[in-house]
Amino acid sequence: MTDVTRHLASLLANSSIADLTSNSRHEAKRSLLNWVACALGGCNNGAVNAALSAVREFAGPPQAAVLGRGIRLDIMHAAFLNVISSNILDFNDTHAHIVFHPAEPVASAVLAFAEYRPVTGAELLHALVLGVEIECRLLNPAVADYRFVWSPTTTVGAFGAAVGVGRLLGLNEQQMAWALGIAATQACGLRDTGGTMSKSFNPAHAARCGLSAAFLAASGFTASETGIEGSRGFLQAFGTPKDPTAVVEGWGESFQIELNTYKAFPCGAVTHAAIDVCQQLRSHHGLRPEQVDSISLKVHPLALALTGKTSPASELEAKLSVYHTAACAIVYGTVGVKQFSSECIHDARVLALREKISVTVDDRFTRDEAHAVITLRNGKTLQEHVQHALGSVHRPLSDRDLEIKFRDLAEPVLSSAAIDELIAMLWSLESLGDAGSISRIAAGGVR
Amino acid sequence: MTDVTRHLASLLANSSIADLTSNSRHEAKRSLLNWVACALGGCNNGAVNAALSAVREFAGPPQAAVLGRGIRLDIMHAAFLNVISSNILDFNDTHAHIVFHPAEPVASAVLAFAEYRPVTGAELLHALVLGVEIECRLLNPAVADYRFVWSPTTTVGAFGAAVGVGRLLGLNEQQMAWALGIAATQACGLRDTGGTMSKSFNPAHAARCGLSAAFLAASGFTASETGIEGSRGFLQAFGTPKDPTAVVEGWGESFQIELNTYKAFPCGAVTHAAIDVCQQLRSHHGLRPEQVDSISLKVHPLALALTGKTSPASELEAKLSVYHTAACAIVYGTVGVKQFSSECIHDARVLALREKISVTVDDRFTRDEAHAVITLRNGKTLQEHVQHALGSVHRPLSDRDLEIKFRDLAEPVLSSAAIDELIAMLWSLESLGDAGSISRIAAGGVR
Repeated sequence: MTDVTRHLASLLANSSIADLTSNSRHEAKRSLLNWVACALGGCNNGAVNAALSAVREFAGPPQAAVLGRGIRLDIMHAAFLNVISSNILDFNDTHAHIVFHPAEPVASAVLAFAEYRPVTGAELLHALVLGVEIECRLLNPAVADYRFVWSPTTTVGAFGAAVGVGRLLGLNEQQMAWALGIAATQACGLRDTGGTMSKSFNPAHAARCGLSAAFLAASGFTASETGIEGSRGFLQAFGTPKDPTAVVEGWGESFQIELNTYKAFPCGAVTHAAIDVCQQLRSHHGLRPEQVDSISLKVHPLALALTGKTSPASELEAKLSVYHTAACAIVYGTVGVKQFSSECIHDARVLALREKISVTVDDRFTRDEAHAVITLRNGKTLQEHVQHALGSVHRPLSDRDLEIKFRDLAEPVLSSAAIDELIAMLWSLESLGDAGSISRIAAGGVR
Repeated sequence: MTDVTRHLASLLANSSIADLTSNSRHEAKRSLLNWVACALGGCNNGAVNAALSAVREFAGPPQAAVLGRGIRLDIMHAAFLNVISSNILDFNDTHAHIVFHPAEPVASAVLAFAEYRPVTGAELLHALVLGVEIECRLLNPAVADYRFVWSPTTTVGAFGAAVGVGRLLGLNEQQMAWALGIAATQACGLRDTGGTMSKSFNPAHAARCGLSAAFLAASGFTASETGIEGSRGFLQAFGTPKDPTAVVEGWGESFQIELNTYKAFPCGAVTHAAIDVCQQLRSHHGLRPEQVDSISLKVHPLALALTGKTSPASELEAKLSVYHTAACAIVYGTVGVKQFSSECIHDARVLALREKISVTVDDRFTRDEAHAVITLRNGKTLQEHVQHALGSVHRPLSDRDLEIKFRDLAEPVLSSAAIDELIAMLWSLESLGDAGSISRIAAGGVR
């Protein structure tokens, strides 16, 4: 089959809410709850302030909320800023098998859209599931070998947002194929951005690109109909195609959103097993940092490739440092938003302990796995193994854990009444008549 | 040297108008004149209508003109739409050595900016030269081998717009490095768009991305400072780096804009030698299409790779068909905007002649070269060789030719008084106090 884009467009245009599995419905609600929490938690970060000040003069009518900020902009800019908020804490969702963050470009786009044109909660949920589905299917390792230089959330994010919004716009098969083509030609996102605000810019840009693609296609703006599989198309550009037809294989049997996971710690997902193993050593042995002579960590290769910064100097670099996060786990016993403050990054105890950590990789480890050997100053050694880090698909955050995370992150910007209302609304998303009410309440600004 | 981005940022932030060569100044004016002409010529195309209808509801305050349309939108959207207009006729500029269109993403961005914040004509000219310079330097074959899947105008266009606008914003070295980094992470653009409206979307998107990058950097939004040369940066993503330092070598000795050329025919630049050779055969021999038995064309390999559509069905496909354009040259004796109308694409004489054309490539040919052998029904053969096509760097359009092109393209949307004023203004750009007046007059809408 050579017409992957066209076939996919047909599946998307003809998909029905009734096709969704009950697991996918529940996980979509968990994904959205986690995403709104992250957006509220990050909304006053300096990166959001800088981006807002850069774009505000160019923004259009007040169509959708910048969550937690009490500001309304056109939906393109609102979606853009809300992804920066949701990404900047590195507290977002992660797919169980592919290290990327599927919800953010899609959730921000469809939620902003829902404030602009009436959409039911069930329609929103369906759009979110489809957007996440196309992202994950494109990144399926059976489809292509992607080059490591690309940041996958960004690379596929425009497709996700285009599909989610395209679905809400009711695009037909032809228009959906164009939307995929316009998303394909905007696909981008370099890993070189790590440790800077632009790491969060990337998926935010993808959300805006996807929104553009959907509206252009709806207006009859033509594009390639082989955007994914074409010889000068997406797969060829971003990697080495293997089996493009895998993008559409087994459609509808289950949904990729069922494999979404939510972070227990606000930093790069691949650091979590190392944090977990260090926390356990601390709590099992009453360990204090001054007792430690050296720490030898063994992790999955990707953990070192993505989070190998030994001497992070900023909040954003610290989130990509397995050295910093492991040291914090020993020093503070917890790794939360506070552990990426300037105070903790420059805490002499953290700095001293970071120096004592060596990290090696083991190809046989899963991403959720870590092993630690701590040698104490008294010569004793302690060791611990974590098979599945907290927050991974095998040890997921419970619905109750997610609510706690939501309250923690939302509390600085929303009233407790608003938080209660939002949580209730998100758990009953399928019966919500007006999905726009989510963003309207999460807009904040009126405590 | 490993800090190419940083070095480049320093050169850009410290560049002075006084450094420009007189050739570069004159060619910048020719580039701008040609660009405004193309934007006016394409402004009522269906692609512009579709794009305008898709974005209008999201646009911000009326800061800059959509040229020829009498509409004002925020500068991001104005720049975006003006590139679609300037690109859609395929009548834009082309670099003499690299097949891409350097002016459009830069000219549209800096002209829109000039309506929003006061800028002199000399500052605008300087910004245009610098924006084009970075684009061409990135595409220098000594820097990297780029993969053919990418559309080069788009891939480097965001850098060009970011640099031009960044210069007008007065970015310092640090901010300029960030602007380059934010441009790098947005770099995109697939060749798969050929023959669709999205071919024109690509550089338009690049202009908008570059504008965003400049304003974000000015607001302190941080980015990589190794966006170009980083191991997970631009050059690694888009090709195989060869010598990244070539990006900054020989800076200021001359300027790449001096190598810009302007099309005599509104279609893919690599078809022009074939059009020219066919036109010459027709005029030298009083040739009529019904006399022709077969036409054998020999061209540069890129002509066939980029414009090998044998049976184009639409205006946009016909612009990428050396078969259609060569046939038109014989049938009509001229290839102008009209030759891409539905009437001419379906003209039975053109269709019949297209069938008689065979095209082969010769690796030793330059891009501006073509050879034709025509066998007549009476058995005679005619042949002609074009060494340098009209509009190439060796047979450039004169200033007077460019004025004629301008008048032809502008006439449907501007009064002759406005056209006269614009032409005079563009030739005296260096002494123009308010560069925003260019777009204000070219806005049209009040004949």
